[in-house]
Amino acid sequence: MKTIHCLLLLSCCHYLSAQTDAEAKSLAIIRENIAAFSTNLVAGNYDAVVAAYTEDAKIFPNNQEILRGSEAIRNYWTPAPDKKTRTSYHRITSEEIKILGNEAYDWGYYEGKTLSLDGKETPWKGKYVIVWKEITPGVWKIYLDIWNRVPGG
Amino acid sequence: MKTIHCLLLLSCCHYLSAQTDAEAKSLAIIRENIAAFSTNLVAGNYDAVVAAYTEDAKIFPNNQEILRGSEAIRNYWTPAPDKKTRTSYHRITSEEIKILGNEAYDWGYYEGKTLSLDGKETPWKGKYVIVWKEITPGVWKIYLDIWNRVPGG
Repeated sequence: MKTIHCLLLLSCCHYLSAQTDAEAKSLAIIRENIAAFSTNLVAGNYDAVVAAYTEDAKIFPNNQEILRGSEAIRNYWTPAPDKKTRTSYHRITSEEIKILGNEAYDWGYYEGKTLSLDGKETPWKGKYVIVWKEITPGVWKIYLDIWNRVPGG
Repeated sequence: MKTIHCLLLLSCCHYLSAQTDAEAKSLAIIRENIAAFSTNLVAGNYDAVVAAYTEDAKIFPNNQEILRGSEAIRNYWTPAPDKKTRTSYHRITSEEIKILGNEAYDWGYYEGKTLSLDGKETPWKGKYVIVWKEITPGVWKIYLDIWNRVPGG
């Protein structure tokens, strides 16, 4: 009986440690995606920004309706051709990323700077909640993205 | 062998149907909580509004920092004693509630009306994302609550 107990315990430990490994991998991928999102936004790589979202993603910009799907998300993130400013800095600071199987939630602060043609930089800051989905093994995309400003942000 | 296959299939079906039942129960509880939140807010029952959140909940009102924990949440929802208006109507319309074990996310629209002493009602509307946690079996509370306005909201 002792042998059986030991085997069960080992098997259980193995299962738990495999779960922890999978979670750690998912966390690392999500953290990379968060950093890449900022890099792509500043580089003006809007295809990559849109590709960070699932095809049926929803974004919730302040003073707009819920924007649904890749086309609406592309329209939101792509600047108008006559736009005289660009995002010169962007950073997301997660306070918690919680993996729940193939989905995860993530919340924290974001900050950025807008650069105008005359060289003036305007900083801004806000807070956010994101829901991530693992659409294929190892590929995590944003399904829900909502944010608003902090005081003076 | 056929008997074993049938038993396995039955056992599997039983497990899946038990899971679906548990999810349906969780959904029903969350829907009740959503309705009760609006009722309590309009009734001025702020103890119940605060109790709708976990003790370590975070709320994300626009133009404020992330507010953490019951005391900060109580301060946010309790009107100042000299306040000349009250919430006369409140309704939350979920578009999706997704149960993920003991947590869930929920998003959609909210709307309400503010009544001033002179009888004037001002309507407002916004969109939200909530993360729920089942803190004890059958008891679901709000862990994250973020929202912002829609156009004209």
